Amino acid sequence: MNSLNPPERILMGPGPSSVPARVLRALGSPTLGHLDPEYVNIMDETCVMLREIYQTKNALTFPVSATGMAGMECVVTNLMEPGDEAIVCVNGVFGTRMVDVMQRAGVTVHAIEVPWGQIFPDEMIAEAVERFPKAKALGIVHAETSTGAHQPIEGVSKIVHDAGMLLIVDAVTSLAGHPVKVDEWRIDAIYSGTQKCLSCPPGLSPVSFSPAALEAMERRRTKVQSWYFDVSMSKAYYSGSGKRAYHHTAPVNMIYALREAMAIILEEGLENRFERHRQMYLRLRAGLEAMGIRYVPERSLHTLNCIHIPEGVDDAAVRTHLLDKYSLEIGSGLGPFAGKAWRIGLMGHAATQANVDLVLAALKDAMGR
Amino acid sequence: MNSLNPPERILMGPGPSSVPARVLRALGSPTLGHLDPEYVNIMDETCVMLREIYQTKNALTFPVSATGMAGMECVVTNLMEPGDEAIVCVNGVFGTRMVDVMQRAGVTVHAIEVPWGQIFPDEMIAEAVERFPKAKALGIVHAETSTGAHQPIEGVSKIVHDAGMLLIVDAVTSLAGHPVKVDEWRIDAIYSGTQKCLSCPPGLSPVSFSPAALEAMERRRTKVQSWYFDVSMSKAYYSGSGKRAYHHTAPVNMIYALREAMAIILEEGLENRFERHRQMYLRLRAGLEAMGIRYVPERSLHTLNCIHIPEGVDDAAVRTHLLDKYSLEIGSGLGPFAGKAWRIGLMGHAATQANVDLVLAALKDAMGR
Repeated sequence: MNSLNPPERILMGPGPSSVPARVLRALGSPTLGHLDPEYVNIMDETCVMLREIYQTKNALTFPVSATGMAGMECVVTNLMEPGDEAIVCVNGVFGTRMVDVMQRAGVTVHAIEVPWGQIFPDEMIAEAVERFPKAKALGIVHAETSTGAHQPIEGVSKIVHDAGMLLIVDAVTSLAGHPVKVDEWRIDAIYSGTQKCLSCPPGLSPVSFSPAALEAMERRRTKVQSWYFDVSMSKAYYSGSGKRAYHHTAPVNMIYALREAMAIILEEGLENRFERHRQMYLRLRAGLEAMGIRYVPERSLHTLNCIHIPEGVDDAAVRTHLLDKYSLEIGSGLGPFAGKAWRIGLMGHAATQANVDLVLAALKDAMGR
Repeated sequence: MNSLNPPERILMGPGPSSVPARVLRALGSPTLGHLDPEYVNIMDETCVMLREIYQTKNALTFPVSATGMAGMECVVTNLMEPGDEAIVCVNGVFGTRMVDVMQRAGVTVHAIEVPWGQIFPDEMIAEAVERFPKAKALGIVHAETSTGAHQPIEGVSKIVHDAGMLLIVDAVTSLAGHPVKVDEWRIDAIYSGTQKCLSCPPGLSPVSFSPAALEAMERRRTKVQSWYFDVSMSKAYYSGSGKRAYHHTAPVNMIYALREAMAIILEEGLENRFERHRQMYLRLRAGLEAMGIRYVPERSLHTLNCIHIPEGVDDAAVRTHLLDKYSLEIGSGLGPFAGKAWRIGLMGHAATQANVDLVLAALKDAMGR
């Protein structure tokens, strides 16, 4: 067997994104026992930093011990139970997936749809909560990784709460790249992934639950169908209240990496970080549009740029050229955009002027323009 | 916020166990995209090595993207569906937990029990399969981490298969420390964790499914209740057959670590490794018994030594002394053994003569003997 020697890539796809050397070093620190007092401190600090990044005071804010999609499953299976109704907003892969995860949890789902790439206007949300008044929650994707659509949350939140429902938000591709104000926007349950704008390797899924979500969870009539994701058994471990009992073995080294990644974020400052993402997006967009390339979504994320592949250009050939010649990864399209769109990530550590200029130059080269 | 500086521990508890520096270095290698051809190669190699360590030709042998308990949930939720019946053998925490995980998946569970620390005689298994002939599967723990009991599997397997049932085995604390012969023992579904005798940080749960298990999964009438653990969607990604489609983002760096940990294991050789564990167990046991300390289980694992705390000795004070003075972690008792037993792990990289002698000396010092 050869020795392990992964090439150094510039990761500008839909995630994972490039990880700073400081985070990789932290990842390789000596493993501690998951009940070691020193580890418990590290976990406490991790949750404190996570609250700052989610802009929330929610006690139950912690990283689920599995990659991004596990956060969706953790939120859905804890908040919902068989027989519950939910409204789910579908405009891409991740809304579609939330419908699937909800249905597997025995939830009756009322899916509302706009075409992929579009966002939901407040009026559509208002109409849905009126039409399905028994829904316990409404689920919506803040940052749709499959299309780059950037959904505003504040208006949606007011409508959902006025109807007495809970608000579930997917922030996998926005957290630490765009403002995600859990308390101000009154989000009841939210999940993200470490491998996007947090600039940490994949392996954890940060979640946060509001007091209203906790109340709903306490009123459950049934056990959470997933033992692994059941928050009722692990919340004492994460929230710092009471005894640190064993639930499952935490992914200790991944927690080191997340803590270091968040230290870097807080050193930069959230507002500075959001502004950097905005500037890099503007630079990339100007460069792409100057090449005649159009964006897919009506309201684009800064962190994920989904663009139409120009007529006559070979999708796979260009991506292979970028990977082989520039060690540069961009993403392919999904669903109706397979073979028709590219997805260029500008996430965290990778959102630099050097990378923007490189991807523009490399695309020009690969397309012969 | 202080910089991250976890102390270097000698991990001789029930896991995580000490991780070799080589594995920590691999863990910190540059992150690749999870669909990068270079990463796909690394994943292929990882699955090849995992088959060797599980002593199986099973195509569907891969690491679940979450810590040890996720393997149990993955196996149970894929193999079983609501309305199925199962026999589960309970003689500790992990048998108890399998009952819970099965019930959450809608399975009617027939639990059979022997006292904690004991193992199941073949006659009891034979009686159970006769009494519950409709059971689709029997679940049993090969290495009960809560008691150190070492359950023989071959006799159980013959009885279970003669009755036309599937055999599910928990090998969390045995894999790579004791022989685990998946094909020879005709195990249909098995799971383990990386943080025990594989000597890799926690974060992955290696599983393997037999062709008979795959057939049972193909005959399912319902979707797997867990989206994250649904093998039907991810098996093409792992088994190397067909297109590598996106299911969830793999924990890329953890896969690096597992690959390196397994390279070390295969360099040592499985038989040498099992013999090393046996020798270290004999040395530890002789030292403990010379101190008048008795073992809990009737048939002890080499990898996990569960011992009665001598009369009048303060459990927590001794463990704190070991941690503070020797940076040495051993485990506390669980369930009926809380405060009454210690669990000393001899797992993988930590199963050395130096560590055995240290833990004996440190215990003598801590107990004032």
